[in-house]
Amino acid sequence: MTPVIEIIIVGNEILCGRTIDRNSIHMIRELERAGFSVRHLCVVDDDTADLIHAFKAAAERSDVVLVTGGLGPTSDDRTISAVAEAFGKSLVLDDRSLVKIEELFRRHNRPMSESNRRQALIPEGSRAIDNPVGTAPGIRLDIAGTRFYFLPGVPSEMRTLFGESVLPELSSDFEAEKIQTATIHVTGISESELYDRIKHLPGAGDAFAYYPSPEGLVVSIKTGAVSPMAAAELLTEAVRILGDRVYSTTGDSLEQVVGRLLTERRLTLGIAESCTGGLVSHRLTNVPGASGYLLCGIIAYSNESKQRVLGVASDLFERYGAVSAEVAAAMAEGARTVSGSDIAISTTGIAGPGGATPVKPVGLMYAGLATADGTKTWRLQFAEDRLINKSRMSQSVLDILRIHLERGT
Amino acid sequence: MTPVIEIIIVGNEILCGRTIDRNSIHMIRELERAGFSVRHLCVVDDDTADLIHAFKAAAERSDVVLVTGGLGPTSDDRTISAVAEAFGKSLVLDDRSLVKIEELFRRHNRPMSESNRRQALIPEGSRAIDNPVGTAPGIRLDIAGTRFYFLPGVPSEMRTLFGESVLPELSSDFEAEKIQTATIHVTGISESELYDRIKHLPGAGDAFAYYPSPEGLVVSIKTGAVSPMAAAELLTEAVRILGDRVYSTTGDSLEQVVGRLLTERRLTLGIAESCTGGLVSHRLTNVPGASGYLLCGIIAYSNESKQRVLGVASDLFERYGAVSAEVAAAMAEGARTVSGSDIAISTTGIAGPGGATPVKPVGLMYAGLATADGTKTWRLQFAEDRLINKSRMSQSVLDILRIHLERGT
Repeated sequence: MTPVIEIIIVGNEILCGRTIDRNSIHMIRELERAGFSVRHLCVVDDDTADLIHAFKAAAERSDVVLVTGGLGPTSDDRTISAVAEAFGKSLVLDDRSLVKIEELFRRHNRPMSESNRRQALIPEGSRAIDNPVGTAPGIRLDIAGTRFYFLPGVPSEMRTLFGESVLPELSSDFEAEKIQTATIHVTGISESELYDRIKHLPGAGDAFAYYPSPEGLVVSIKTGAVSPMAAAELLTEAVRILGDRVYSTTGDSLEQVVGRLLTERRLTLGIAESCTGGLVSHRLTNVPGASGYLLCGIIAYSNESKQRVLGVASDLFERYGAVSAEVAAAMAEGARTVSGSDIAISTTGIAGPGGATPVKPVGLMYAGLATADGTKTWRLQFAEDRLINKSRMSQSVLDILRIHLERGT
Repeated sequence: MTPVIEIIIVGNEILCGRTIDRNSIHMIRELERAGFSVRHLCVVDDDTADLIHAFKAAAERSDVVLVTGGLGPTSDDRTISAVAEAFGKSLVLDDRSLVKIEELFRRHNRPMSESNRRQALIPEGSRAIDNPVGTAPGIRLDIAGTRFYFLPGVPSEMRTLFGESVLPELSSDFEAEKIQTATIHVTGISESELYDRIKHLPGAGDAFAYYPSPEGLVVSIKTGAVSPMAAAELLTEAVRILGDRVYSTTGDSLEQVVGRLLTERRLTLGIAESCTGGLVSHRLTNVPGASGYLLCGIIAYSNESKQRVLGVASDLFERYGAVSAEVAAAMAEGARTVSGSDIAISTTGIAGPGGATPVKPVGLMYAGLATADGTKTWRLQFAEDRLINKSRMSQSVLDILRIHLERGT
């Protein structure tokens, strides 16, 4: 049986806008990798009546309900008392969990409070799931054909319990959907342009789904919409039509693709960033093993540091301005020299909201790429707010680097 | 009347884990700033039956329903046809929207496709809302006492329509809740430690809510739970008890606080990053005006670049290793010299998953802070995955800088 899976995120902090809900994203991705898809997702306030309502609705429509949050030690953590009330269960002290909590505090040499003791209470008939990385145990409770898992909201704890206990249980007890979703990651093309280029492919109307993001566009072939063979053909044909706009068909991020290409070609990288302010370096160093190819990044935010650290000639600023092809080129060359790398990339531009001039609007960026064979520059224009501009600018320069590495020139 | 507000995010891309739902966060924060709170949030697949079910449930329980996504030009954008079906409306061509779409394509000198023409269709009885930054108009539709707003899913378009049209209408037509939520942002303290320190305050049980995140903890005083005067007293008392663990009571991020302190004290900053890989610089440059105090950041990922760019003496690596207090100190001093700044901060550590040794586990970090008066270092230990370690490490070094600037030493 392929289960109907529902996620309930508990926590006023999301409805209040304090926290981004990263837990659902993690669970959804891991489930998809295992061949399961999520049908319902909702976010519920730490309010007992709302929680009871959500738990009852979930028990009616879903086979598996994954609940995160509200297991903490504070007075606004109400998940367990709400589930006990929703299904008429009393709370019992789980001795094993209490011993583990006590051990944890002893090991960290910290005093244990009454509020932590409360975290060992679980509904009768449920089973505590060991939490090796925190105080609150996870809980599994089966209610008339629906299986509830309650997990802590702290992402590291949720991930550990989900990966080590929940997902293995689901994989062994339920049948995964057979067709995995195939994806094509593209960048540097608009959604409607992309759509118009591939919509005529046979079966495209039912099979393709389109997902825009600051990291580009994802075209996904939907699970179950077409046969595996037709899906493979559609994928091949779409990749052919989209050409070098495709950076990944495996789900890898652009920084992962760039990292792999650098590793394969045994090339090292230097970076000079102005308008992207460290984001290019941050993205590349999110990939484990980046120290194998990334030598040095320079965030030369002031003109003086562009001169002093990267050796950009001062007359370039006077003649062309800091946001210019000439300065982008000099920055890339400087980063290559300073870091001693094979290749260097650079960004200089206006992220906004300030800094625009009549001829240089917010969102304007020049990118540079320097190798032993010479230096090239690109002029790009974006039109969003500061954070999205930084994101799109970083995407562009990483894509320039990818194309360079793929062509092997 | 204080309205019951519901958000429905349409899009298979969120249930598939392709995209993070940033739209709900933006709307929630803006609504809260205007004195409104959101009661329901759900994410619905681009599936006509699921959409119809969600729209009908929302019409029953909510006064205002904010729907984003599914207005795009592709075949999997089904929001408008689903709402027409849910409430028995036909679709009519909105001439004004069509003219605007045609204009937009002419201005960008791009061919307009049939799929873009489809974006001018709106349900009968609804009103199109001008979209100055994209093709799909927003739509307002009133159904038996419930007001629906349909907005594009592209964040920049959604933000424009929401800020310029939706929020002003809500503010003029509905009564906002009177008490704004006050918040205390803290860092460097665990949730249960914080809870135990302030839970005894009179009224704390009802009034405080606790929100952990990689950027620290937020203690919020809940809207309506206590009188404005009691809320102000609780806030003052909690801030006094928590002392220098509090970095903000205005909702500002740590990088905003640090930026303001640097500006006020007319001090400039240099950065040397190893394990944080550019994240410290990225966060600081997310704040508009960062170019006023940030001179230069060096991401010295290789030992050679630590020597070459920052001037770290090579024997320090042999005697203490790259992850050591001595190297952190030399990096901070080098960053101060290279960038010519008043203050410099540094990070060196093991973000993981690789790179650990028997005496230096994953998550170990040394931070350095150099001024004209000398250099200090800190040893910190984290225990998460690579991305969360980078996040917590960046938070720690920014907090070290904040404390230094606040003490004025």
